[in-house]
Amino acid sequence: MNPPARDPFMQAAIDEAMAGLAEGSIPIGSVLVLDSRIVGRGHNRRVQRGSVILHAEMDAVENAGRLRAGDYRRAVLYSTLSPCEMCSGTALLYKIPRIVVGENRTFRGPEEYLRSRGVVLEVLDDPECVRLMEQFIRARPDLWGEDIGE
Amino acid sequence: MNPPARDPFMQAAIDEAMAGLAEGSIPIGSVLVLDSRIVGRGHNRRVQRGSVILHAEMDAVENAGRLRAGDYRRAVLYSTLSPCEMCSGTALLYKIPRIVVGENRTFRGPEEYLRSRGVVLEVLDDPECVRLMEQFIRARPDLWGEDIGE
Repeated sequence: MNPPARDPFMQAAIDEAMAGLAEGSIPIGSVLVLDSRIVGRGHNRRVQRGSVILHAEMDAVENAGRLRAGDYRRAVLYSTLSPCEMCSGTALLYKIPRIVVGENRTFRGPEEYLRSRGVVLEVLDDPECVRLMEQFIRARPDLWGEDIGE
Repeated sequence: MNPPARDPFMQAAIDEAMAGLAEGSIPIGSVLVLDSRIVGRGHNRRVQRGSVILHAEMDAVENAGRLRAGDYRRAVLYSTLSPCEMCSGTALLYKIPRIVVGENRTFRGPEEYLRSRGVVLEVLDDPECVRLMEQFIRARPDLWGEDIGE
């Protein structure tokens, strides 16, 4: 029996995470969706660019370019992993109203704070997202710790 | 009578803000200080690079490169303006324990949230920081609104 079809935007975020993994980096991916269309794709660039701010969500938002305030307020941010404080803060800055999260078992950002600020947060608990992170954390605990300031 | 001497790190942040203004962009500057030494300097790059994530504080943290977790936990982040949700979240991610703010009259980020999370936030109420922002907001309300998602 086939598994249930995955949300295509979460699949695009997973594709980004896989691209990051293939580059020897952290397998977290993200897409920013506006009016049912992907306007920004991103994955963590810590290793590739020596960046400490280009988490997947930051990369996706950056790659979407300079949107209008009203665009962000209709957008949905997809991420394979529960967004950290930085990425959550970025969603709050631009008033992105909805975040769809692949999983929050291996890391959990300030989800309650986001909800208290009115953000709708949906956690899919996708086994592929969990598997990617579990394998990565086991293989590279040092790099993972660095990425979350630990 | 001369005005009282300014904290040299806040002066460095103001110098960054002035550099941004000279580039036709948003006059907000920041430095990251570690063990009484500037390890990262930055200013807002929205206009110069079309960046929606390179606020001054993000630029300073990014330019400091990949520090160790223990380094961030001894660092001080200086900014000419009260940090927004994104920049505040970045300080929380890396557990930067202290933030020195030029002013919070023209914009106020989530200062109470930062304090509730244990960050020591000091607001200098520096007239030069206020003047820079007041002039800029008057001249470019559109650009300023864009930078804070409004």
